[in-house]
Amino acid sequence: MLLSELGEFGLIKKFKQAIKLDASVIKGTGDDCAVLKFDKLHYLLFTCDMLAEGVDFTRATDPYLVGRKLVAVSASDIAACAGIPRYLTASMAIPKNIPLGYIERIFQGALAAARKFSINFAGGDISRAGKLVLDVSMLGLVEKRYLTLRSGAKPGEIIFVSGPLGGSIRGKHLNFTPRLKEARFLAKNFHPSAMIDISDGLAADLGHITRESGVGAVIFQELLPVAKAARSLSEALYMGEDFELLFTLNRRRAGKILKLKPSVYRPIGEIREKKYGLRLVEKNGREKILLPRGFRHF
Amino acid sequence: MLLSELGEFGLIKKFKQAIKLDASVIKGTGDDCAVLKFDKLHYLLFTCDMLAEGVDFTRATDPYLVGRKLVAVSASDIAACAGIPRYLTASMAIPKNIPLGYIERIFQGALAAARKFSINFAGGDISRAGKLVLDVSMLGLVEKRYLTLRSGAKPGEIIFVSGPLGGSIRGKHLNFTPRLKEARFLAKNFHPSAMIDISDGLAADLGHITRESGVGAVIFQELLPVAKAARSLSEALYMGEDFELLFTLNRRRAGKILKLKPSVYRPIGEIREKKYGLRLVEKNGREKILLPRGFRHF
Repeated sequence: MLLSELGEFGLIKKFKQAIKLDASVIKGTGDDCAVLKFDKLHYLLFTCDMLAEGVDFTRATDPYLVGRKLVAVSASDIAACAGIPRYLTASMAIPKNIPLGYIERIFQGALAAARKFSINFAGGDISRAGKLVLDVSMLGLVEKRYLTLRSGAKPGEIIFVSGPLGGSIRGKHLNFTPRLKEARFLAKNFHPSAMIDISDGLAADLGHITRESGVGAVIFQELLPVAKAARSLSEALYMGEDFELLFTLNRRRAGKILKLKPSVYRPIGEIREKKYGLRLVEKNGREKILLPRGFRHF
Repeated sequence: MLLSELGEFGLIKKFKQAIKLDASVIKGTGDDCAVLKFDKLHYLLFTCDMLAEGVDFTRATDPYLVGRKLVAVSASDIAACAGIPRYLTASMAIPKNIPLGYIERIFQGALAAARKFSINFAGGDISRAGKLVLDVSMLGLVEKRYLTLRSGAKPGEIIFVSGPLGGSIRGKHLNFTPRLKEARFLAKNFHPSAMIDISDGLAADLGHITRESGVGAVIFQELLPVAKAARSLSEALYMGEDFELLFTLNRRRAGKILKLKPSVYRPIGEIREKKYGLRLVEKNGREKILLPRGFRHF
């Protein structure tokens, strides 16, 4: 069997079953971050992300933005758990005769992003490879009472996004702002029952929430904020790398946020019972099955 | 300028100067692990390591051992700081049509090593690349009073290694045991003034200790335990990936350990004043300058 037949998520599922964790791991694989014991009031969040030349960027991509993205992607994972990013380490596998200036620009972009989000660039590893591969690991802290996972959504709750979706390939995937401030605002004031950042695509990431929460969901096409850069509805549903927050609120809190921030947080659908599955209501009112597919590496 | 002219350590030095850290970072880049505030009694250790196909292993290498090494390399960094490894995340960039069984064997090797050293496999990231690239990030804990860095060596102290050196390419680099138990034993009973694991090679890693401690050092060839697999003295000095501990003890503690564990911990030299530099005394008594070079990625 080839990996391309099993798929990335099939592989992760297979791996996950074999892993045993001790009681200090509040949440292992299967969320945006691993959640670990820290102190009386906080959990430690731990996440990693890899970017590879030829897949996530090319030699023609502005290296400064590649470095920036490397840090922003993990910061977005910390945001999805409502945490504050604190420390990172970065690994680089570098082709032998790459211009030094190119590597320095990646570093400068990563460092600028780390500074902007007040993250300590605590260490790294440099090695060699045929093509450039970058990896970042990030630690964050979250107050226990603010921790938000993918698993708390309940039928009847309203699904929100923090911004328009689709077309990220035309720029946003490289220069997005991780929704750190928004996630903290939400956790403090609205206690989302579930939250994720949209990296794989709305349908796939909503699928992560419904699977982890044991629920179904419906999205209304006419409510969906589609980005100007998007060329089709399909891009808003499946393209991914929007790095907006996707979250669920109970109806009372949904009403409150709609009064307070109607232009920022947009309701796009509703959580249903599990047996309902995942569906899209088109503008003409027709209900369609929404497959939780999105960007696939294989 | 090309990276091959500046070198890996030149690049790290350049990067390091640009990094600003807050007071919660006890030690950033420049040691085996980043050392972070944790609680009243402990520090948190944070390290990452990357292995790339074509550089660190090939498709002919047993994938189980590649996975095992991925975990063991970072565990060895935690050992070098006298810590206990606790959590890891692993990233894999995987070529598109690699046999699934190959990836599973890597995972099994990594998981077996994680279990053996009681490390929680807390998460990961899977992406795609032209060649296989693996990265692990590891968190460990160390009691504040046991933390051992590269920077504490003082003139007059004795330099020790935890085992024979050289020839690691003939097997040991894939199946070594990180010296976790030994490091804890040393920290608890002998308080090494400085410690590092030998990954770059004895000369290079001793160079890291002398540079960070602001001292010089002499190694005696006739004291150097050379591994059976080594084909030359040069391999014991420069090959690297021995993953033995290199550490320094004051003379009183050195005498004590020589009585207690003479066959395990071998004295190989002495810390000198900085102006002495780094030297090797050959079997014939001649003193030679020892260049702190070792395995270089570029």
